[in-house]
Amino acid sequence: MRLSRYFLPILKENPREAEIVSHRLMLRAGMLRQQGAGSFSWLPMGKKVLDKVCAIIREEQDRAGAQEILMPTIQSAELWRESGRYDDYGKEMLRIQDRHERDMLYGPTNEEMVTDIFRSYVRSYKDLPLNLYHIQWKFRDEVRPRFGVMRSREFLMKDAYSFDLAYEGARAAYNRMFVSYLRTFERVGMKSIPMRADTGPIGGDLSHEFIILAETGESAVFCHRDFLDMKVPGADVDYADDAGIARIVKDWTTPYAATEEMHDDKAWDAVADGDKVAARGIEVGHIFHFGEKYSKPMGAKVTGPDGKEHFVSMGSYGIGPSRLVAAIIEASHDENGIIWPEAVAPFDMALINMKAGDAECDRACDELYAALSAAGCDVLYDDTDQRPGGKFATADLIGLPWQIIVGPRGVAAGEAEIKNRKTGERETIPLSAVAARFGKSL
Amino acid sequence: MRLSRYFLPILKENPREAEIVSHRLMLRAGMLRQQGAGSFSWLPMGKKVLDKVCAIIREEQDRAGAQEILMPTIQSAELWRESGRYDDYGKEMLRIQDRHERDMLYGPTNEEMVTDIFRSYVRSYKDLPLNLYHIQWKFRDEVRPRFGVMRSREFLMKDAYSFDLAYEGARAAYNRMFVSYLRTFERVGMKSIPMRADTGPIGGDLSHEFIILAETGESAVFCHRDFLDMKVPGADVDYADDAGIARIVKDWTTPYAATEEMHDDKAWDAVADGDKVAARGIEVGHIFHFGEKYSKPMGAKVTGPDGKEHFVSMGSYGIGPSRLVAAIIEASHDENGIIWPEAVAPFDMALINMKAGDAECDRACDELYAALSAAGCDVLYDDTDQRPGGKFATADLIGLPWQIIVGPRGVAAGEAEIKNRKTGERETIPLSAVAARFGKSL
Repeated sequence: MRLSRYFLPILKENPREAEIVSHRLMLRAGMLRQQGAGSFSWLPMGKKVLDKVCAIIREEQDRAGAQEILMPTIQSAELWRESGRYDDYGKEMLRIQDRHERDMLYGPTNEEMVTDIFRSYVRSYKDLPLNLYHIQWKFRDEVRPRFGVMRSREFLMKDAYSFDLAYEGARAAYNRMFVSYLRTFERVGMKSIPMRADTGPIGGDLSHEFIILAETGESAVFCHRDFLDMKVPGADVDYADDAGIARIVKDWTTPYAATEEMHDDKAWDAVADGDKVAARGIEVGHIFHFGEKYSKPMGAKVTGPDGKEHFVSMGSYGIGPSRLVAAIIEASHDENGIIWPEAVAPFDMALINMKAGDAECDRACDELYAALSAAGCDVLYDDTDQRPGGKFATADLIGLPWQIIVGPRGVAAGEAEIKNRKTGERETIPLSAVAARFGKSL
Repeated sequence: MRLSRYFLPILKENPREAEIVSHRLMLRAGMLRQQGAGSFSWLPMGKKVLDKVCAIIREEQDRAGAQEILMPTIQSAELWRESGRYDDYGKEMLRIQDRHERDMLYGPTNEEMVTDIFRSYVRSYKDLPLNLYHIQWKFRDEVRPRFGVMRSREFLMKDAYSFDLAYEGARAAYNRMFVSYLRTFERVGMKSIPMRADTGPIGGDLSHEFIILAETGESAVFCHRDFLDMKVPGADVDYADDAGIARIVKDWTTPYAATEEMHDDKAWDAVADGDKVAARGIEVGHIFHFGEKYSKPMGAKVTGPDGKEHFVSMGSYGIGPSRLVAAIIEASHDENGIIWPEAVAPFDMALINMKAGDAECDRACDELYAALSAAGCDVLYDDTDQRPGGKFATADLIGLPWQIIVGPRGVAAGEAEIKNRKTGERETIPLSAVAARFGKSL
C-alpha cells in the first residue's frame, strides 16, 4: 500500500483525553477515532490489526474443536427473564424498546441465547461435546467509560460456550479452551499467565483469568518466576487426548499465580524470594465453568446413556479482541511508539523513500516495492513528500517490525538501510538483496 | 469436517413461518435460527457462506480502491441532528437512551458518521479521492419483518462512501463502484443487471440498483436480452483509467433495464419484441451519488487547487451480504434444496459413506477424506449412521457442488460415484482417481 493513498491520519499532538499509553498511541497512529463516550471507529490500520487478532483467535478456537456461529447484537428481554438476569443485571445493560414497545436489549453477553439455540436442537448426549463461539459486538453501558478500547462501551468479544453431559466432560471442555487460550496469546506475540479467578456461588476451581504482563498494566499481579520460561504447547497439541490436555493445564496451574483480588499472602510467603515476580498485568481472557446455572432454569437437557434426561453442564470462554489490541500495545511499545509483534503487525514493513520525487530514489523504491510484494510481503510504502525526519517518526510511531530506508546516497551505492523497530539495530545491505532477505524470513 | 461432529441441525419439516423459498431452505438446512422478530443467529454452515460472500465483497472493494474501516453500531443522536435526519427518519430508526439519558440510535446507515470522520482529518484535495467502507450490522425497525434474512431488522451491510472535490471526480468514484459491483455479483455466481433508480431531489442519473434475476424474485423487472450475454470485466480491469471505466458503465447502462417502479412504457415499446425480457428480480445492491447532501450541513470541505474551500461531493454504495446469501438461494435451488455456486459453497463437496460402521467403507472414506483434504478440498464427510436415503436428501438439501458417494459395492470394485448437484450428472470413477480429479479442478 502506498502511504500517499492510504487513509492514515497521524496526529502530531498527544490527545488530551487519552489517559493510557495504548489509547494515546492508537489515536496518534491513526488506528482509532472516538465517536462518543466509549465508542470508537476503527480506521484502516486499526481494522487490519483487529482482523489479524481475530483470525488467530478463530484458528485456535477451531483447532480446539469449537464451531463458529454468529448471534445478533439485539436480544429479546424474554430470554433474559427466563434466566432471571433481566432484572438482576444492573444499569450496564442497555435496555431498548422497539416500535411495538417490546423490551429488548443490546447483548452484554450471550449465555441465554446460546442456551436457547442448544435446547432448540440438541436432544442426545451423542451430539456432545459441543462448543459454539462467535465474535460479535457487545455493549455495556459503563458509568464512566475510559482508557480507549481497553474499556469501551461497545466492544468486540469472542465468547465460546461449551455443553457437556456432566462435570467430567465439562472439565475436559474447559481444559481445551485453557490450552487454546495459551496458544492464542502466544501467537499474538504475548506472554500470558493464567490466574485463578473467583468462582462465586458456583464453587470449584474452574475459573481463570489470562493476564498479559505489562508495566503499564491496570492491576497488580503476583506469580512464580517459572511461568516466564514455561513452554506453550505447539500447533500439534492433541485436543482429543483429554488426559494429555489435563496435564498441560496442571503444569500451568501449579506454580503460584494470582491477581490482587485473589492474592493469598500465606501461599505467596511459601514462594522462594528469588522466584517471586510481582508485576502489573492486563486481563485479556476469562474462562469459567458454571455448570447448570443456565441449563436448569432454561430447560437445556439431553438424554444420557442411562436413558434419563440431564441438564447440560456448561462453561463460557471470553476474549475481547478489541481490548487485546490495546493490551498488546501496553505490553509492547517505547517512547517513540508502538512495537508490533510480527503476527499482528498491520504491515510487515515500512519502505521509506527519503527523497520522493528524486528519479533514482523513486525508481529504486518502486522496484523494491514490487519485488517485496512479489515475495509475499505486505509493505507500507512511504512515497509521500514529507521530510525524512517526519517519515522516520511516523514509521516508529506505527511500529511495523521493519523499516527499509532508501536515500540518494544509498541508491548511488546500490544499498538500502534496514532497521529493526524492536531492537533498533541497523544494517546496510545491497538493494538487490532486500527482497530475498525478507521474502525468505516471512 | 466430519458431519458427526458438525453442528448442522437439519429440519425434516418445512417451517410454517417461512413464506419464501430461501427462508425455508436456510432454516431446513441448519444455516439459520430465528431469535425474534426479524432477528437471526447464523449457525456454522450459514456463517461459513456469509464469510465467503463478505470475503469476495471485500476483495472487490479493495481492488476498486476503497479502504475498510469499522464504525460502531450505536451512534449518537447529535450527529443525526446535524444532518437533520434525526427528526426526519421515521419509526424504522431504533432510538435508544443510555444510563445518562443521552439520545443514541442503532445505525440504520452511516452517512453522518463517515462524514464526521472525514471532516475530522481531511483538509486538502490532495488527499482525494477517498472511499471508506465497512461491513457492519445495521438495524431497521420494520413494522412487519419477514422473509428471513431477506428483510430482517438486524442485518449486515457493506456500505461504502466516496469523497471527491467535485462532481467529475464523484462520477468517476461512482463508476468504479459500479464496475466493482458487477464483478462482485458475478464472483458470487450471480448474473446481476444494473437498473436505473430514482434520484429524488438530488437529480441526475447516478443511482442504480443491481438486480439478480430469480423466478421467485420480489419484484417485476424489464430488460433488454443483451444483458444476458454481456461480459463482466475481468480481475485485470484498470480502475485507474477513468475513461475506460466510464466506457464499461456506458455499455452496461445503454440497453433498456428497469424495475417496475422506474418502468417506462414508451422506451419499452421501442425494444424489439424478441429482445424483451420480462422477469422477476431481487435487489442486492444500490449505489447512489448524493453530492453535497451531507457535506454541506456537516461542514465537510477541503481546500481545492484554487486555494478555496469546497464542500466535498459524496456517494454511497451498499450491498447487504446477509440478504445476498438469501438472494443466491432464491436464484439457485430446486425442489430438493439449495444449489450453491462453487465460490460461496460452505464446503466444496459432500463425501457420503453409505454404510458407516462397515470396515471397508470406513477405510475407503477415511482415505478419501484425507486425500481430498490434502489436495486442498474442503470436505463435509457424512460419517453418521443415518440411512443412505437420508444422507442423499441431506446432501441435496445443503447443496454442496459435488457429492462423492461410497458404498459397499463400489468399494469392492474400487470405485466411487460422483454426482454433480447442479446438473444431477453421475459418474463412476476409481477411488484412487477422486483426489486428483478434484484437487486439480479446485
